[in-house]
Amino acid sequence: MIQPNIPDNGQTRIVIVGGGFGGISLAKQLKNAPFQIVLLDRNNYHLFQPLLYQVATAGLEPESIAFPLRGIFSKQKNIHFRMAEVKRARPADNVLETSIGDIRYDYLVLATGSNTNFFGNKAIEEHAVGMKSLIEAVQIRNYVVKQFEEALLMPSEEEIKPKLNFVMVGGGPTGVELAGAFAELKQHILPKDYPELPLHLMNIYLIEAGPRLLAAMSEASSRKTADGLQQIGVKVMCNVAVKDYDGKVLQLSNGETIPSQSLLWSAGVKGVPIEGLPPEAIIPNGRIIVDDHNLVQGTANIYTIGDAAQLTNDPAFAKGYPMVAQVAIQQGKNLAHNLLAIRQQQPLRPFKYKDLGSMATIGRNRAVAEFSGMKLSGFIAWMAWMAVHLMTLMGFRNKLVVFTNWMYRYLTFDRGTRIIIKRGAANITKLRQIVQDTRYQG
Amino acid sequence: MIQPNIPDNGQTRIVIVGGGFGGISLAKQLKNAPFQIVLLDRNNYHLFQPLLYQVATAGLEPESIAFPLRGIFSKQKNIHFRMAEVKRARPADNVLETSIGDIRYDYLVLATGSNTNFFGNKAIEEHAVGMKSLIEAVQIRNYVVKQFEEALLMPSEEEIKPKLNFVMVGGGPTGVELAGAFAELKQHILPKDYPELPLHLMNIYLIEAGPRLLAAMSEASSRKTADGLQQIGVKVMCNVAVKDYDGKVLQLSNGETIPSQSLLWSAGVKGVPIEGLPPEAIIPNGRIIVDDHNLVQGTANIYTIGDAAQLTNDPAFAKGYPMVAQVAIQQGKNLAHNLLAIRQQQPLRPFKYKDLGSMATIGRNRAVAEFSGMKLSGFIAWMAWMAVHLMTLMGFRNKLVVFTNWMYRYLTFDRGTRIIIKRGAANITKLRQIVQDTRYQG
Repeated sequence: MIQPNIPDNGQTRIVIVGGGFGGISLAKQLKNAPFQIVLLDRNNYHLFQPLLYQVATAGLEPESIAFPLRGIFSKQKNIHFRMAEVKRARPADNVLETSIGDIRYDYLVLATGSNTNFFGNKAIEEHAVGMKSLIEAVQIRNYVVKQFEEALLMPSEEEIKPKLNFVMVGGGPTGVELAGAFAELKQHILPKDYPELPLHLMNIYLIEAGPRLLAAMSEASSRKTADGLQQIGVKVMCNVAVKDYDGKVLQLSNGETIPSQSLLWSAGVKGVPIEGLPPEAIIPNGRIIVDDHNLVQGTANIYTIGDAAQLTNDPAFAKGYPMVAQVAIQQGKNLAHNLLAIRQQQPLRPFKYKDLGSMATIGRNRAVAEFSGMKLSGFIAWMAWMAVHLMTLMGFRNKLVVFTNWMYRYLTFDRGTRIIIKRGAANITKLRQIVQDTRYQG
Repeated sequence: MIQPNIPDNGQTRIVIVGGGFGGISLAKQLKNAPFQIVLLDRNNYHLFQPLLYQVATAGLEPESIAFPLRGIFSKQKNIHFRMAEVKRARPADNVLETSIGDIRYDYLVLATGSNTNFFGNKAIEEHAVGMKSLIEAVQIRNYVVKQFEEALLMPSEEEIKPKLNFVMVGGGPTGVELAGAFAELKQHILPKDYPELPLHLMNIYLIEAGPRLLAAMSEASSRKTADGLQQIGVKVMCNVAVKDYDGKVLQLSNGETIPSQSLLWSAGVKGVPIEGLPPEAIIPNGRIIVDDHNLVQGTANIYTIGDAAQLTNDPAFAKGYPMVAQVAIQQGKNLAHNLLAIRQQQPLRPFKYKDLGSMATIGRNRAVAEFSGMKLSGFIAWMAWMAVHLMTLMGFRNKLVVFTNWMYRYLTFDRGTRIIIKRGAANITKLRQIVQDTRYQG
């Protein structure tokens, strides 16, 4: 018999769903608070999503960007972690139904993050792979290396081409960083690994429906990014949308077609609300409408933070805050403050976003970064990018392993983890099925 | 259409099956030889099996003990690597049938290694898990961590016990090292990670059918190993065989039963010959009889080296050489010498094994080692164990990552990779099915 086994200790119980940036930030802030905290996640680890693309391109081992949630909270006495899948909330009873049984709450906090958004295009959803979970990144790595191995076995150029055309869709940081990493593979790894392969047949496409890459940054940074990617061999296409894809040929809005067996989709994310919330609180992209204390509209004690929350209290972000780690972290901190304020009958503090800037790496020695009104690019932005990522990566061991990999790669032009741990997918459609619904599966 | 795409260049072609210690040793020795070498492996990496147990116990990431075969040979011009599964040999035609098509050879070398030997016990084979491949080790890690997470959800001691009883069968180095690593988990990791878990219910069993552990070493080392394991909490049982196991309860030859959902089997290995060889050359444990030049009995140009070879030219090893890396490496070198000698019409050199000693680690600061007539134990043996493993591990990046992990673990008593990347198996029988036939699947 399975049951949550969390004894009621008389304290106010806060149930947090999701061990991402938001959930962890909230739980840590409540370290010494007189609450009983229950943290639920489908996985037993916190995932550092900003480096997923390096796992997918054989630059890092998956374990280096995942940190055990129990390790994070081993010294925090007021927290109970349980690996569980959430089924639905029953707000009338203050109960959350999960795979390990019903859990009562005084406050429920949904920090459930976001999943890949295919914008309703079923054909693309069936054949393209997103990159939001660890298992997706690992499977992409296995799949990509397999394309090179298999291309060697093809007798004609017509058969080789679709195996060596890699298409990223979405010109945000993930698409930019993925495309840059693929370009590095082509430049530095593949000529050594596959001297027999006709690498001139390999193309890396970055396709963006809007007018420019990194739309959240300045036009200057967008231009530098596009130039930088083109210099290392990426075919950048802006103002072009993907119309259709059958797992073999990509149809573009400009009439072009690209034969490709690898479509990596990072063109958008959406919230994934749980059942049982007031339907009117959920907007079409799945985000949940909250007030400026992150309280879900129409509820008394259910909060949502991070990617899942739709909060529009800042005219600069009229469509809601960006789905990035900083928003989740800051909302977690603010909610912790407010939960304590409620208890102490103090006035609540509305959420106010402090934009710490944004950055994206393009390739070796090259990145763009904008913060505090400064625009950096090139080597110094690249160094800043590495420093920020190393600092925010959780766990001393993970920092060491990532740093070791980066130094090794920088000095040797090599990538160490280009192994196929388990071959599963025969083609991208199968790959998509394998990683289906991996939002929490990691 | 798939085909090997290996052009005949007029040179003598040597096809090597298997990128383990033996196959790599042979291929490297032939670096400047006037041969065309075709290396086949089901995986695209060389696996450092001696550290598999650390992957299984969350001490190392799988990528740190796997090295891309293409990376090993990127500077060796006379080699063609292909990822392929071997189906059968057709000696009459000098052809090897594989998953990527037929491959002609002048010499065929089988360096196919060994697989877990369940000695015909079907019940155990169905429910116990071996540890010869990377995917087995990763799945064991996922499964073991899951046992702890699930034990938390069980309301009664009767339900918790089988989840916290871990049974290793086989008192060789793998069983000893696994049991020691489990004891470390219990001592240093679990109390911090699972303060709610009744850890006094956790037992680690090491069961050996023979009279002592590490039978290949001296009686003194065996005794020290058994004492050391018992001191850190392992229940060592010698002269006890496993009679039956249904995935839930283990039946022992002494009449005892152990409720356990985790039976890790390292009680033996066997050769896995390919089809098409002379049947009389294959002995019951799957090894292939070779002469003292490693030529397969009854063939003219098929060789077998390493675990797969049954060679009895040394009275000290009347039942065949031990299935260890050193034998494979030395046979690979000797065969390289002989293949060149054949070409130059020189006399062949019979294989002569130089025993470099053996060692096993028991736990923190403690190991046993015997070489050159010396017997070491304790801290100095442990240092020697680490040095030897780091030196023989392939790849500078892997050495760095493993060293980083070891230092981190030594200083912090922590293990970094205790994450469940993909939950698959609901119980050990399912786990066994997932990793089925993973001999080459890594």
